[in-house]
Amino acid sequence: MMIIMHTDATEQQIAGVVERVEDNGLHAHLSKGEERTVIGVVGDGRAIFKDQFLHLPGVDRVIPISRPYKLASREFIPDNSMFPLDGVKVGDNGIVLIAGPCSVESRSQLLETAYAVREAGAHALRGGAFKPRTSPYSFQGLGEAGLEMLAEAREQTGMPIVTEIMAPEHIPLLTRYADVLQVGARNMQNYALLNAVGESQHPILLKRSMMASIEEMLMAAEYILSHGNRRVMLCERGIRTFETATRNTTDINAVPVLKSLTHLPVILDPSHSTGHWEYVAAIARAGVAAGADGLIVEVHVNPTEAKSDGPQSLKPERFAEMVSQIRAIAEAVGRSLAPVPSSEASPVTAAGK
Amino acid sequence: MMIIMHTDATEQQIAGVVERVEDNGLHAHLSKGEERTVIGVVGDGRAIFKDQFLHLPGVDRVIPISRPYKLASREFIPDNSMFPLDGVKVGDNGIVLIAGPCSVESRSQLLETAYAVREAGAHALRGGAFKPRTSPYSFQGLGEAGLEMLAEAREQTGMPIVTEIMAPEHIPLLTRYADVLQVGARNMQNYALLNAVGESQHPILLKRSMMASIEEMLMAAEYILSHGNRRVMLCERGIRTFETATRNTTDINAVPVLKSLTHLPVILDPSHSTGHWEYVAAIARAGVAAGADGLIVEVHVNPTEAKSDGPQSLKPERFAEMVSQIRAIAEAVGRSLAPVPSSEASPVTAAGK
Amino acid sequence: MMIIMHTDATEQQIAGVVERVEDNGLHAHLSKGEERTVIGVVGDGRAIFKDQFLHLPGVDRVIPISRPYKLASREFIPDNSMFPLDGVKVGDNGIVLIAGPCSVESRSQLLETAYAVREAGAHALRGGAFKPRTSPYSFQGLGEAGLEMLAEAREQTGMPIVTEIMAPEHIPLLTRYADVLQVGARNMQNYALLNAVGESQHPILLKRSMMASIEEMLMAAEYILSHGNRRVMLCERGIRTFETATRNTTDINAVPVLKSLTHLPVILDPSHSTGHWEYVAAIARAGVAAGADGLIVEVHVNPTEAKSDGPQSLKPERFAEMVSQIRAIAEAVGRSLAPVPSSEASPVTAAGK
Amino acid sequence: MMIIMHTDATEQQIAGVVERVEDNGLHAHLSKGEERTVIGVVGDGRAIFKDQFLHLPGVDRVIPISRPYKLASREFIPDNSMFPLDGVKVGDNGIVLIAGPCSVESRSQLLETAYAVREAGAHALRGGAFKPRTSPYSFQGLGEAGLEMLAEAREQTGMPIVTEIMAPEHIPLLTRYADVLQVGARNMQNYALLNAVGESQHPILLKRSMMASIEEMLMAAEYILSHGNRRVMLCERGIRTFETATRNTTDINAVPVLKSLTHLPVILDPSHSTGHWEYVAAIARAGVAAGADGLIVEVHVNPTEAKSDGPQSLKPERFAEMVSQIRAIAEAVGRSLAPVPSSEASPVTAAGK
Repeated sequence: MMIIMHTDATEQQIAGVVERVEDNGLHAHLSKGEERTVIGVVGDGRAIFKDQFLHLPGVDRVIPISRPYKLASREFIPDNSMFPLDGVKVGDNGIVLIAGPCSVESRSQLLETAYAVREAGAHALRGGAFKPRTSPYSFQGLGEAGLEMLAEAREQTGMPIVTEIMAPEHIPLLTRYADVLQVGARNMQNYALLNAVGESQHPILLKRSMMASIEEMLMAAEYILSHGNRRVMLCERGIRTFETATRNTTDINAVPVLKSLTHLPVILDPSHSTGHWEYVAAIARAGVAAGADGLIVEVHVNPTEAKSDGPQSLKPERFAEMVSQIRAIAEAVGRSLAPVPSSEASPVTAAGK
Repeated sequence: MMIIMHTDATEQQIAGVVERVEDNGLHAHLSKGEERTVIGVVGDGRAIFKDQFLHLPGVDRVIPISRPYKLASREFIPDNSMFPLDGVKVGDNGIVLIAGPCSVESRSQLLETAYAVREAGAHALRGGAFKPRTSPYSFQGLGEAGLEMLAEAREQTGMPIVTEIMAPEHIPLLTRYADVLQVGARNMQNYALLNAVGESQHPILLKRSMMASIEEMLMAAEYILSHGNRRVMLCERGIRTFETATRNTTDINAVPVLKSLTHLPVILDPSHSTGHWEYVAAIARAGVAAGADGLIVEVHVNPTEAKSDGPQSLKPERFAEMVSQIRAIAEAVGRSLAPVPSSEASPVTAAGK
Repeated sequence: MMIIMHTDATEQQIAGVVERVEDNGLHAHLSKGEERTVIGVVGDGRAIFKDQFLHLPGVDRVIPISRPYKLASREFIPDNSMFPLDGVKVGDNGIVLIAGPCSVESRSQLLETAYAVREAGAHALRGGAFKPRTSPYSFQGLGEAGLEMLAEAREQTGMPIVTEIMAPEHIPLLTRYADVLQVGARNMQNYALLNAVGESQHPILLKRSMMASIEEMLMAAEYILSHGNRRVMLCERGIRTFETATRNTTDINAVPVLKSLTHLPVILDPSHSTGHWEYVAAIARAGVAAGADGLIVEVHVNPTEAKSDGPQSLKPERFAEMVSQIRAIAEAVGRSLAPVPSSEASPVTAAGK
Repeated sequence: MMIIMHTDATEQQIAGVVERVEDNGLHAHLSKGEERTVIGVVGDGRAIFKDQFLHLPGVDRVIPISRPYKLASREFIPDNSMFPLDGVKVGDNGIVLIAGPCSVESRSQLLETAYAVREAGAHALRGGAFKPRTSPYSFQGLGEAGLEMLAEAREQTGMPIVTEIMAPEHIPLLTRYADVLQVGARNMQNYALLNAVGESQHPILLKRSMMASIEEMLMAAEYILSHGNRRVMLCERGIRTFETATRNTTDINAVPVLKSLTHLPVILDPSHSTGHWEYVAAIARAGVAAGADGLIVEVHVNPTEAKSDGPQSLKPERFAEMVSQIRAIAEAVGRSLAPVPSSEASPVTAAGK
């Protein structure tokens, strides 16, 4: 931490800051420039409370030097984190594809979509049973009935299930059915939820809030990691900007930035990050070209009938086309699609793990 | 809802859209321009599902006409909503001042601050016992011990208590101690929480997410209102923009916009919306000048020792100065500070209401 | 300037940075923490080239300590800058009101509006003769014919004229007619224009770009000031954010921030910063309550006939109402409206100054 | 254009709007819903002045239906625009690579870089002689001396030259030396400049302003096209958002969106859109994967000595590596790098065209 004094700070004010640093059991290192004095704080910058200095007389700014997250950082764990999802390895060289409808709407809709995405090469099935909706009057999901359909799709296709969790009290229920709990963008800073999913020790897909900085996303991951749960995937799903031509702005920069700052796998969601199915394949290709470890894509057998996110859902045939494009891009960057576990292998149920 | 067709949409595609509209039990009204056809959907726009049209062949855009919220709208309830908090009327002509520390840190810190803000003219006391913090390593609040201190401050000063709720399971505990439950910015779209506080029937201070549009904030209020809980205050606390000179950007436009769109009281939080105590009084004045019904301000007896938000907390003497400025501004716009209930009046306990 | 080394920077890399600092004729001051080394650069931080350090091996970040502007800063000139415009003092205790149509459209439109705003208490007349328009097919202004109408309005009402300049080659023409040259938001970083208006030595109203930081706005002012032209007013006119309920988001925080960072007068433009006439008066009040030194407001005798910005233009009677509200707010903050020079005083022509 | 009336608009107000529509020589088409009346305006929506309706009594909103640009739209010109730059075809199936230093700093720096990028596969050379800089105290470019060095590099390597234009009066000078005039991000809405480069009939690289929407960028292109100059490339170079981990946010969505809306070639600038050389190759790959027709990349033989943009400049060897990655990505999407014209071909001088 560096404390920048005002140009007209007095010797007494400087001494006051130094005293406060030492009160915290740390060491102050003075650097007197022609214009200003800067006080370096030596010790563990994470532990001490930066804000207390801002009010001291003569202080202009306080600049943190250390990054505020630790367990999530590549400085702490240099190698890529990897973990298996029912035989599919996440975070390894192979690109992982998660696909399925926004919401589980009916047994036939889900099973049809599940078979179609499996056929096209998907590794895992997404589908929401509890839906966060902007309007209290919109479809809120099928709840436990939807989870049962997901379990059936899992059993039939062998694909692990990714589904959203909206409240800590749903953990016992959801962990019975789901292989990965998704923390949605609107809940990225719902700390009660982050603590609960951290304690669950279940694999987590953490979506970036549409207005969270990359650092805040890593801090949210840190909450989960600090409970000893290391199986966390980070998902870029577009940020909110002034541009309205697309639903969100895909922060494609976040892909290489995250790969440099953290060891956690990075997933891109081109469906939410664009909001229009016509742009999904192009942005999916961009994500893998930029270094993403996987994609999560909305697919619906009949998008015009979808109860949510129809405009951004691909039809299965377009998804299949996208998969073949992604295979080519993966090879162009020296990677491949993750191998799909043989369907002969008897699918393990979530409960039985 | 208006459905805008592509310039090259065929007659068949237009017929397809019309059919879909009628399948929804609504009426389609064609308007053929020189360039495009526009299809007006006549009926209750709120009830039908806009997204289903976006995927139909030939459709370019779909534009909603009705506002998506109803109970929160001034069209539905033309007159200002008002409700009492222990004798202080919120939403009426008098400006309401809520003040206190960001976090409850100790009994003496809280009581000292409570007496100071009461003396200066505050109507209610704010103070967090459960704190949402970006870092899992930061101070997370005193929990129930903090609530007990708030109850004591309430008893001694007679001021109603505003405190933040972070999870639905805290409702029984918090409603025992608090007069107003604050839903924080990071939880504005935590729908499980919105439903729970709606059902609690307790007065709510709903803070705007730093990434939410004004319309989304009103939709969040709609969640609460749809449970029959009509005692909701809306709080503008700054939005996230590219500007970094201040912690957030006060969306001062939101004050007159909200006053025009909704009947709910509008409160401004100049502490979070600026992040620097030097700017708090100026923005507080601006808020009341623009039409806000109240202010919520962070005050700390010793900001340099504060465990959170020290840089944006006012010392009590500066708060007192701010109150006298606000009184002058209130008069300039034909309002006044809300009368402080006589301190002789035996303070009603929260439990006893 | 502080150079933050990577946690794993070697001694040799540190020595390399120190050498580079000394090559620049400056002094390097090492501060070795437990985690990292920070190198303070002592000397005139403004003069040396920060970017050259970012590529050196072992360097993580470079943090400037000095502000990048000088002539615009309050550290350099502590007292408020003031200057007269035809007898009206800008930057002094009195609030200055600039009003008039977006574009000069006709002689009668301009004169009628000019008399009406003068009557209501305006100190200066705004009106565009050269208009920057998003579309090449929109009305582009009357050009020199418009300037002649402005000159006539000036002569008849005695008000100084504020008009926009779009290209350096217009300076000889515009300085003949206008008392203040306005640099529009879209040209805030048109450096050829900034240099030209700096050299003109004419009073300047510099509008903030809708996506410029406060610091960049001060750097743009620095361009003008560096040519010896000290008569610069800064104008906040709203920034671009994700919120679409208003045309722009008024950055009301910018008012106290600018008043603290710079000695230059600060003007608010509530017409552009809201984009809707219904919100103009509320935001004008907020601006003065927050400390603005003046307002620039669009007024049109018949907004529905305006060729540009009709939706955000006030009718003269609403402007008059706004002026009386502003008078009350000014008094509430210990200020007043600037005195209007007696109309008996023979108006000085721009050419004759 | 659709005019949405207020829910409580009277019959008389509706009649007033209809009358106004007809005064404009257009036809009004009424659509009476249960809640509101919507008035469709039939005729050429581009020609009439939308804002005039917003002030009419009873009007709530006005929604444009037609896109505001025409010459730039794919509806107007369905096929991709292509044009040659000294034998390199822009806008065709082959990806075009423009590379070189931010600023021309010296003859040796430029020639060394030019040969290196040519060798690595670049098709054109970029280099600034007139530089827009945030600070008046920063290096402003070598001016005409820089242009002469560019001409020499052109003659020696045969590569066409791309250089920035900052003011209309530089056109005669710059068109003597440069093959492509670049309009920089800060000047994207400098309409005097857009008109001048439109009239020049010279090929233009138009950079998106960091604050412009995609639609506004197309409107800026429309200015140039409306002068009959059809050789316009559009360049996405990052937009400004709240994220500070990178200098700008690459709006990768803009690539497929632009390819769908316009026939003009789309170029990506990953140097400015990230601001850090480590991320340039990843984002360059993403751009081509998403459908970009070319890249413009900053390369410097010695980035630590660069007078501007050093942190985002690639060394020649890294650029060469990037080119081979781009070749692989281009093939993965069914494209290739544009063929480099044989160096035996006697290079045509710009003046001689």
